[in-house]
Amino acid sequence: MADADFETLRYAVADGIATVTLDRPDRMNAFTGTMMADLIAAFDRADADDGVRAVVVTGAGRAFCAGADLAEGAKTFDYAARGRLAPDDGMRDSGGRVTLRVFEMRKPVIAAVNGPAVGIGATMLLPMDIRIASAEARFGFVFTRRGIVPEAASSWFLPRLVGIAQALRWVLSGRVFDAAEAQAGGLVSEVVPPDRLLPRAYELAREIADGTSAVSVALARQLLWRMLGADHPMEAHKVDSRLIQQTGRSPDAAEGVVSFLEKRPARFPLRPSADMPDAFPWWEERPFT
Amino acid sequence: MADADFETLRYAVADGIATVTLDRPDRMNAFTGTMMADLIAAFDRADADDGVRAVVVTGAGRAFCAGADLAEGAKTFDYAARGRLAPDDGMRDSGGRVTLRVFEMRKPVIAAVNGPAVGIGATMLLPMDIRIASAEARFGFVFTRRGIVPEAASSWFLPRLVGIAQALRWVLSGRVFDAAEAQAGGLVSEVVPPDRLLPRAYELAREIADGTSAVSVALARQLLWRMLGADHPMEAHKVDSRLIQQTGRSPDAAEGVVSFLEKRPARFPLRPSADMPDAFPWWEERPFT
Amino acid sequence: MADADFETLRYAVADGIATVTLDRPDRMNAFTGTMMADLIAAFDRADADDGVRAVVVTGAGRAFCAGADLAEGAKTFDYAARGRLAPDDGMRDSGGRVTLRVFEMRKPVIAAVNGPAVGIGATMLLPMDIRIASAEARFGFVFTRRGIVPEAASSWFLPRLVGIAQALRWVLSGRVFDAAEAQAGGLVSEVVPPDRLLPRAYELAREIADGTSAVSVALARQLLWRMLGADHPMEAHKVDSRLIQQTGRSPDAAEGVVSFLEKRPARFPLRPSADMPDAFPWWEERPFT
Repeated sequence: MADADFETLRYAVADGIATVTLDRPDRMNAFTGTMMADLIAAFDRADADDGVRAVVVTGAGRAFCAGADLAEGAKTFDYAARGRLAPDDGMRDSGGRVTLRVFEMRKPVIAAVNGPAVGIGATMLLPMDIRIASAEARFGFVFTRRGIVPEAASSWFLPRLVGIAQALRWVLSGRVFDAAEAQAGGLVSEVVPPDRLLPRAYELAREIADGTSAVSVALARQLLWRMLGADHPMEAHKVDSRLIQQTGRSPDAAEGVVSFLEKRPARFPLRPSADMPDAFPWWEERPFT
Repeated sequence: MADADFETLRYAVADGIATVTLDRPDRMNAFTGTMMADLIAAFDRADADDGVRAVVVTGAGRAFCAGADLAEGAKTFDYAARGRLAPDDGMRDSGGRVTLRVFEMRKPVIAAVNGPAVGIGATMLLPMDIRIASAEARFGFVFTRRGIVPEAASSWFLPRLVGIAQALRWVLSGRVFDAAEAQAGGLVSEVVPPDRLLPRAYELAREIADGTSAVSVALARQLLWRMLGADHPMEAHKVDSRLIQQTGRSPDAAEGVVSFLEKRPARFPLRPSADMPDAFPWWEERPFT
Repeated sequence: MADADFETLRYAVADGIATVTLDRPDRMNAFTGTMMADLIAAFDRADADDGVRAVVVTGAGRAFCAGADLAEGAKTFDYAARGRLAPDDGMRDSGGRVTLRVFEMRKPVIAAVNGPAVGIGATMLLPMDIRIASAEARFGFVFTRRGIVPEAASSWFLPRLVGIAQALRWVLSGRVFDAAEAQAGGLVSEVVPPDRLLPRAYELAREIADGTSAVSVALARQLLWRMLGADHPMEAHKVDSRLIQQTGRSPDAAEGVVSFLEKRPARFPLRPSADMPDAFPWWEERPFT
């Protein structure tokens, strides 16, 4: 049963963790334009809610996401023939709209891959911060077998995540592979029994959420992902210098040091929704055109 | 015996796979200006031939390639003294001309390293898509021991392939290392007995060639290698968006989806020589000067 | 006891290797502004001394470096309140001034991590060329637990060293981890018993220093680190082409080839202080502002 606000997924928050569950189990959670919009809205909601410290993404039923919905057969990827061009974004790849939204997140995102993750089901995982898999998961960057191309900016994300050699192996062949191979190749960090998947995802979320400043986590997440594209460490140094000054005099820094010296849990007051330092964002929006 | 069209290598096509065999076994396949030209011409031929789905590169005799031919002794790397400056390309490093040609390939290239691969014999491997080694292979980025510098754009390729820490270890010391260390460090993906080397290389070639669209493979290969240099995932998204539209309405995409739904092998009609989408190439040539 | 020229560290050269020992053992070698200046001066000295072929960095006592000195409590990171802004570099992050100095080195730098390396104690390791650890070492990128941000350009260095997934795991959680996890995650290449730490560091230094051209090592080091930021292999090819020409006709290249052919140890005459090729440096300084 989908969420009242979403047609294709469920969204729930408990104990500071938002869970996004892809929820078209009769279609193996196949990806559609509606799912794209729902995912972006769900990430927007989690990012705006200071009660959410991390997001877990998983799938209902036996699949994580079987890829683009092939109900339209030969016309599946012929967007013009299907009249699916949204006037506002023209020709934008829908998978890339999702992965770029994840790239922008202030909250860590953890993928709990419960079953097959193929095509966009695999590429949507790449900008997430942690990926773990059930032993029943399978993965496939199957684009060369469908006559199309790897999408969702996966050509940018995948080599940075698993190295260029492993990325080429998986993408050129389009082969489907199991969870053990995904772990060996660096696509997921852990493989667990199916009934341990969500509990383990929540443990990992807690590892980040407990004892950390939400503002620091948001800044650190953006620093790491964005400096992947910087051409010189001086670019990080420039940003660091401003952020260290601004966060260093913040109530979170005072609490971080004092709680450490007093050997007690920290209670950080700042909120990502309202208390980001002036130096954030330090980048200019990269336009589509 | 070298190929009629090549002085320093043999070129043969069988079953859709081109095999390039470095063929100066009495000189351990040492690299010369002629070998540079032969390699570039062989890659040109493979790329232009729609009957070739992948290229395997190996060496005749006991070596893969022992590096620059040292027959000229102390003058080996003194190109001016040897009068070896080709007027048309002035001062260009010959190894880099080979690796940049491989970088441009539309066909996957698989290195089957049968023996010592040293100097340019090691650096020429880096832009290839898959590297496997015989247990008798050895490797050495020996430049610091010869008083020169790592060439063939290896300072760009090697850290992206094996990580900066491993790249520094091998390059700064200039040490020769065996196939097991090459595999542990990520330089080759597999080590096999000598008599399994070529059969395994052909298996890997088949894994990419069978059941995939040749146009999709060419596009995916260029996407992955080129987006290594992009400074933001939006740059991939811009290219993806055009390519997904153009390939999505192509006969290969229709065949890819329909053959999948019909659970039969795909027969993709498009040819890399003539049917690349308009959005290809999406980059501007990077000039030498 | 600190060196006569340095307040916070000892500097000693033996057998062509400089050892820099952080030396505030009563404060677990906690980092201060003075230590920043001392480290930069020590790296300057090592780089200028042709008698130094490599640098080993370690800590006195049971810690490597416990991070910023927290003696000022809640004001630790509030530089303005502490009046610690050096007029000449305004708002520059002190950790980044150290790591950017290491980035510029002509000599390889080997970290021998003898104990806890936390905060700047961990991030200062990243631009070094080799990192090994005692089994008693621990590591922590603890910034999110102090309410600040990862500094010292670590957002640039760490993902390039250990991959984006591992970098996110360590940085977002701010968790302290042991030497085995550091090795598994690629932060250190070896873990040895405490009494083997310095001997092994010197062995690794010898591996680079013996039998190599000091000028070639300096060039190779800068090529590998700087091409991490290049957006196309052609940028490496342009630099290679000039450097191969210039080093190829140098006395070091002649000695490198001849000694190899004569199967005798090489004696390279060129000195990094005076004999770098004209093409070095090939980059423009990247300004802070």
